[in-house]
Amino acid sequence: MAPSTPRLVVPIDLKKKAWDQSLPLHNRWHPLIPPVAEVHTDEVFRVEMVDWTGGVIGDNHSATDVQFIDLSITHYLSGPIRVVDKDGVPAMPGDLLVVEICNLGPLPGDEWGYTATFDRENGGGFLTDHFPCATKAIWYFEGIYAYSPQIPGTAPSAELLNIWNERESHVQENGLQTLKLCEVLHSRPLANLPSAKGCVLGKIKEGTEEWERIANEAARTIPGRENGGNCDIKNLSRGSKVYLPVFVEGANLSSGDMHFSQGDGEVSFCGAIEMSGFLELKCDIIRGGMKEYLTPMGPTPLHVNPIFEIGPVEPRFSEWLVFEGISVDESGRQHFLDASVAYKRAVLNAIDYLHKFGYSKEQAYLLLSCCPCEGRISGIVDAPNAMATLAIPTAIFDQDIRPKASKVPVGPRVLKRPDVLKCSYDGNLPITKNPSATS
Amino acid sequence: MAPSTPRLVVPIDLKKKAWDQSLPLHNRWHPLIPPVAEVHTDEVFRVEMVDWTGGVIGDNHSATDVQFIDLSITHYLSGPIRVVDKDGVPAMPGDLLVVEICNLGPLPGDEWGYTATFDRENGGGFLTDHFPCATKAIWYFEGIYAYSPQIPGTAPSAELLNIWNERESHVQENGLQTLKLCEVLHSRPLANLPSAKGCVLGKIKEGTEEWERIANEAARTIPGRENGGNCDIKNLSRGSKVYLPVFVEGANLSSGDMHFSQGDGEVSFCGAIEMSGFLELKCDIIRGGMKEYLTPMGPTPLHVNPIFEIGPVEPRFSEWLVFEGISVDESGRQHFLDASVAYKRAVLNAIDYLHKFGYSKEQAYLLLSCCPCEGRISGIVDAPNAMATLAIPTAIFDQDIRPKASKVPVGPRVLKRPDVLKCSYDGNLPITKNPSATS
Amino acid sequence: MAPSTPRLVVPIDLKKKAWDQSLPLHNRWHPLIPPVAEVHTDEVFRVEMVDWTGGVIGDNHSATDVQFIDLSITHYLSGPIRVVDKDGVPAMPGDLLVVEICNLGPLPGDEWGYTATFDRENGGGFLTDHFPCATKAIWYFEGIYAYSPQIPGTAPSAELLNIWNERESHVQENGLQTLKLCEVLHSRPLANLPSAKGCVLGKIKEGTEEWERIANEAARTIPGRENGGNCDIKNLSRGSKVYLPVFVEGANLSSGDMHFSQGDGEVSFCGAIEMSGFLELKCDIIRGGMKEYLTPMGPTPLHVNPIFEIGPVEPRFSEWLVFEGISVDESGRQHFLDASVAYKRAVLNAIDYLHKFGYSKEQAYLLLSCCPCEGRISGIVDAPNAMATLAIPTAIFDQDIRPKASKVPVGPRVLKRPDVLKCSYDGNLPITKNPSATS
Amino acid sequence: MAPSTPRLVVPIDLKKKAWDQSLPLHNRWHPLIPPVAEVHTDEVFRVEMVDWTGGVIGDNHSATDVQFIDLSITHYLSGPIRVVDKDGVPAMPGDLLVVEICNLGPLPGDEWGYTATFDRENGGGFLTDHFPCATKAIWYFEGIYAYSPQIPGTAPSAELLNIWNERESHVQENGLQTLKLCEVLHSRPLANLPSAKGCVLGKIKEGTEEWERIANEAARTIPGRENGGNCDIKNLSRGSKVYLPVFVEGANLSSGDMHFSQGDGEVSFCGAIEMSGFLELKCDIIRGGMKEYLTPMGPTPLHVNPIFEIGPVEPRFSEWLVFEGISVDESGRQHFLDASVAYKRAVLNAIDYLHKFGYSKEQAYLLLSCCPCEGRISGIVDAPNAMATLAIPTAIFDQDIRPKASKVPVGPRVLKRPDVLKCSYDGNLPITKNPSATS
Repeated sequence: MAPSTPRLVVPIDLKKKAWDQSLPLHNRWHPLIPPVAEVHTDEVFRVEMVDWTGGVIGDNHSATDVQFIDLSITHYLSGPIRVVDKDGVPAMPGDLLVVEICNLGPLPGDEWGYTATFDRENGGGFLTDHFPCATKAIWYFEGIYAYSPQIPGTAPSAELLNIWNERESHVQENGLQTLKLCEVLHSRPLANLPSAKGCVLGKIKEGTEEWERIANEAARTIPGRENGGNCDIKNLSRGSKVYLPVFVEGANLSSGDMHFSQGDGEVSFCGAIEMSGFLELKCDIIRGGMKEYLTPMGPTPLHVNPIFEIGPVEPRFSEWLVFEGISVDESGRQHFLDASVAYKRAVLNAIDYLHKFGYSKEQAYLLLSCCPCEGRISGIVDAPNAMATLAIPTAIFDQDIRPKASKVPVGPRVLKRPDVLKCSYDGNLPITKNPSATS
Repeated sequence: MAPSTPRLVVPIDLKKKAWDQSLPLHNRWHPLIPPVAEVHTDEVFRVEMVDWTGGVIGDNHSATDVQFIDLSITHYLSGPIRVVDKDGVPAMPGDLLVVEICNLGPLPGDEWGYTATFDRENGGGFLTDHFPCATKAIWYFEGIYAYSPQIPGTAPSAELLNIWNERESHVQENGLQTLKLCEVLHSRPLANLPSAKGCVLGKIKEGTEEWERIANEAARTIPGRENGGNCDIKNLSRGSKVYLPVFVEGANLSSGDMHFSQGDGEVSFCGAIEMSGFLELKCDIIRGGMKEYLTPMGPTPLHVNPIFEIGPVEPRFSEWLVFEGISVDESGRQHFLDASVAYKRAVLNAIDYLHKFGYSKEQAYLLLSCCPCEGRISGIVDAPNAMATLAIPTAIFDQDIRPKASKVPVGPRVLKRPDVLKCSYDGNLPITKNPSATS
Repeated sequence: MAPSTPRLVVPIDLKKKAWDQSLPLHNRWHPLIPPVAEVHTDEVFRVEMVDWTGGVIGDNHSATDVQFIDLSITHYLSGPIRVVDKDGVPAMPGDLLVVEICNLGPLPGDEWGYTATFDRENGGGFLTDHFPCATKAIWYFEGIYAYSPQIPGTAPSAELLNIWNERESHVQENGLQTLKLCEVLHSRPLANLPSAKGCVLGKIKEGTEEWERIANEAARTIPGRENGGNCDIKNLSRGSKVYLPVFVEGANLSSGDMHFSQGDGEVSFCGAIEMSGFLELKCDIIRGGMKEYLTPMGPTPLHVNPIFEIGPVEPRFSEWLVFEGISVDESGRQHFLDASVAYKRAVLNAIDYLHKFGYSKEQAYLLLSCCPCEGRISGIVDAPNAMATLAIPTAIFDQDIRPKASKVPVGPRVLKRPDVLKCSYDGNLPITKNPSATS
Repeated sequence: MAPSTPRLVVPIDLKKKAWDQSLPLHNRWHPLIPPVAEVHTDEVFRVEMVDWTGGVIGDNHSATDVQFIDLSITHYLSGPIRVVDKDGVPAMPGDLLVVEICNLGPLPGDEWGYTATFDRENGGGFLTDHFPCATKAIWYFEGIYAYSPQIPGTAPSAELLNIWNERESHVQENGLQTLKLCEVLHSRPLANLPSAKGCVLGKIKEGTEEWERIANEAARTIPGRENGGNCDIKNLSRGSKVYLPVFVEGANLSSGDMHFSQGDGEVSFCGAIEMSGFLELKCDIIRGGMKEYLTPMGPTPLHVNPIFEIGPVEPRFSEWLVFEGISVDESGRQHFLDASVAYKRAVLNAIDYLHKFGYSKEQAYLLLSCCPCEGRISGIVDAPNAMATLAIPTAIFDQDIRPKASKVPVGPRVLKRPDVLKCSYDGNLPITKNPSATS
């Protein structure tokens, strides 16, 4: 065994568009998107990735780019990467692909990120009724610690893709009814159904018949599903492992949408510190592992979910302030054991609380999206109230934010630890708000 | 200041019924339930509590008691306790009551607990469709570490009580419609509306006119609400603080339903390790703190939630195996950003996985209810899939439960660390199942 | 198996002297001190203990008691306790005794402790040249978390006792020479050799011939040795285990000198928060475990050391400020890879640093003795400098103690977290200094 | 503020010798070694470094290179780097230089490291009497987590250099006497006094008169001293800060001797996982900070020590097995409160214990040098015994290494977690021992 310099299998040229990269990216899941590279197990390889918008959001002090972004053409993934074992035998459907995250970081020359909320009329977010305008915050990295990568996903088989498209179209069709009950979200797309608009399909040439067919079948990459995908689990970092089911020969592993930091739920939608970057990965194959370790939960053997393993190097905080929410919405209406409503309440409670300490509500919303806060399902059985909590590590603030009999005077505040969140919240221009958006 | 031996303000005689205690317990929230004791701020005082069923569940190997329990007469609280400051001025509506948890533990002579699932026809639980029978597991303590107490709650004002009763009756009335959409829960009560049946009202004499009136207004203590109550936040233990809104003069603090250990969600409903026990508490009053620190979210100033502060002594685990669930139910049906469905899936995935390592599914279900696992809302924005995760500390098992290319042979297993969960899972009688319940 | 209420095997009456207890204490190690109680393996039992001075140090604001204490008659242990297995067979020499710490806490009515430094002429301490006067600080507990118990020890065999007495007398005799090189310590006793003065021998009647003989052979209990004893490892608390070699039949387990909290090194000598208290323990016997697990290091099979196992519930802090010391003493003289000198320098550096933030040097010295700081041997190989470090958790202060370009103005300070260290440092009377001692 | 790609200020060409680098390295401290680069505060810059031997130790399976290494020409540092503020004003004597570690890692193409022990006749180590032969273990990295860098140091002033040379020569001269008492170390050099042999002085040309003069004055870089230097504090990694005193204009910061991982004490001398690598640093200057924050301890204002700040991202382990040592040496002889002897005993106890689980003693020695174990000064006041402990995280083994009544059978073992320590301990050739060295 020799020392291993990770082999760069998917390079990115940040000056080029996603579809002009030497190994073109893709923003849909489809079994027929051909692999752009091949790796063998036990090899450490490097994958570079654009940020999830492919460079549409800029390092500037205007949120206009956020306001008018075309979300149909976003969320690019690098890959697919075909995985074979030492004898050249590819991962096969039914295997479990073990992906170990060896290293990750920003791309040289691109050490910055952003957190944003979309306009209510263009994507919105978890609290879009409370924060209807596009906002943006820019963060500059100083090499500290990048974590919370996007989880890689494997390509779906044709059968799994059909299952996705069918069940998600069901939500789309029944949308109005659901909305009436939820009253949570307004003009947001209910699902991200296949559509040729904005489709980027890697090596498959646009304009061909093949492209047309695949583009109309291929699943959006935004929601996480059986194949992994956009799970956004905040604790995945160096030393973690992902166990992904394999649905097509070679596994066809893709990855993208890297985050510098995020809180549980990534609540503002574009809520992590979004960035371009690289991953150094190592794969292993557990032959027959799907049957051995995963249990299908649904009508077919394909209804499974990945497993993750988190290691001992995540940042640890010793003290937390915890906000609670119950499944009663802002109008005072009771929902039945609804954890989504309860978590929304917990987040709103935390935003209002932080506002009392000198942050604007928009700052607090973005902060809770991207700082290492934990969102917990605390009670899911004591009818009628689900109970969700949001725990914030107190160490990230420059002041003691705990309730006190004699509260310190409120003024403009900065986060305590620029070494955790290289925050542009400088009191002058913490968040760039597009004026026309608020009017 | 002199050394402080906690003053016992609410004693319990385990040989007596809840209503026969010298300071009688209560199992409803109502502003008119009179305090049974008074404490002043900065005093450390001790409150003893029965287990939440008041001794109905026994230390034996039959689950018949669980199967036929009358849930209308359960969930007893010790108190109310009136809180005054050093000058004798009581906590007043609008204040924030700070309750510090100094110590806690089992009652001498009663060092055991239980975890159970209710019959689907009698209470059920989060996964009642999958686990419809009453089951019970007994745990013997050996003094190790007791944590996760029930959160104390303050008495509601009459106005807040009305709000509760009205909004919860709304769910009851609209139950069928909700159920049709959720398809999660069956014969479970949708809310716990006021009812004189099973009512225990402390010093208020049963049979009097006052009793009748209050019993028909008083709120069930089972769900957590604005006043705190049954929040079951798993990390509350020694050194934690609770900031409770005050709704009535004197605050009228009550506590009960103590847990030795629980996982996020307490998923099997009677899912913690339930126990009798004591709390040693210390109170402080933040005058006007509700306005200062809490933001009403709803039509009245009463729509607030408590805040919690977690200290540095909770058990820490360094490695976790994480199961994911998305908001697609077991029938393959897509739900729209529904965190409750996603968490149900994550828990079911974990149960099935552990089953592969030699645990029965019932064992796994009870274990995930009461071990220190974490339930996270990982993604709540990537429509249509909410993403919830259940993270299990790997150190609680006696075997390496991570997926491996060459899996160890499966056999009957015991938990690795009897010093964390003094578990009766001995391979012979891990869980007592009532035979008639399964047929 | 039935629920286990710990059986009280050694009760303490705080109104009585150590030798007047119903089960009299002992302050010497000797194989012939008879057991006062017997326990069997798997039984959880409770041992009560006086503080290490047996009540000589009082809860008052004068350090006179500290100044004139007779150290020859201190350090009382409860026990010995004979340990037998389920069949009644005692632990035998060569076995390993496993002692699990199930619970611990203060004695009811005695919830306070103290930290002190001795007069240079009467015991001194690690920094006695810098802090020659007797000082005392009183701490009141509020039930929070008591940890760092004295490690229990087993009785030595006659042979092991001889080894101790011989080797320690060697130091006493060669004291002057050592002192000349060390120049660290002055009038402190170099060892604690056997002496009948102050001897308390449990059930052995004073004045008898047997008492005389044993008193002149019995080892002082102050230093830790092969049998365990006064190891003062700061992380031992609930859930920890101690593996003690057994030297006499029945093991004859004793314990005492309980601490509420201490830093690594317990540097001021009486440096922990000293207290009376109780331990709830559970024993197991590993037959033949000495040979199986321990390796004698010295001329006989008795030259072994205990092993400890620390569990996951110790308090965790996420940020530390670290002070370094090298093996160059305060006169500028170079010592050769001497970790004791290096640690002394690290502690002095930390004291001087904290002094700049408003603490008196005496306060800082006591604080570093009893707060949960960590003393590390960082470098022991880069001749001529040993490198030791003292790491202080920043969270225990009420101010940011990190170096900054614009330092906050200095004033009288209190510790940030009264919930960790219930500190009497109130700016008025933080430490009681005996006036005559300083002159 | 723009995104910051770290500027490479000291590049390394691994194919060239230390003195042939474009910016030549140095292996002595002297104020007249001229800076090779200049950085300003708030700039993130990158420094590359050779391994401490400058490539003498090879990636092969022979320890001959370790056995015959010429230690006089080792321990190369990159730098000095002159630090100026934003206005171009250099750091001045009396300032405090704040060095933040933003990132670190191996050099591309050189992702491996080694741990070794030196021959007793050539450097030796902490346990050289027990392990007199040269050994070597090779480790291959897979990008996981590199931490524990060498602490950077600032150049000494001429005055400080004189102090060092004088005090260290004193040890050299009195060596025999010290040795007689210590009996710990044999043919090891007692200090590393200035000597022209092996001197590498950066930009100063060898052969010139200036070179001769400086070479005979310059201090060895191996021991840590007032200026920082070789402190080897194991927890310094990403997010940590070092506060270094400034002794010469511009600070003249140097760094080198990078470690992938190390245990407290780095006990085998070449005991970390030694590597080449890069650091990304950011500096700040606290004007007048030496006086403000540091207290001289010795005859001059120069007798100070750096301060360190450790952040929340170090790996955390939840369970530890702890070995104890007292200040009684292997011959049974009592030493007086000698922490170095106590730590030696603790390490020897741990080695012998691990040997019982299937590791060779040499493997265990190397492992304890380089794994994240903690060396603590537990007791330094209970005369005559100092007490030191060595705590090993149990999670790094592939077996349960805790003592048990029924021990698992012993066989050849591998470390449990190749993702923490990419260990070449494969049962065949765990450690390469030079045959002639053992005879």
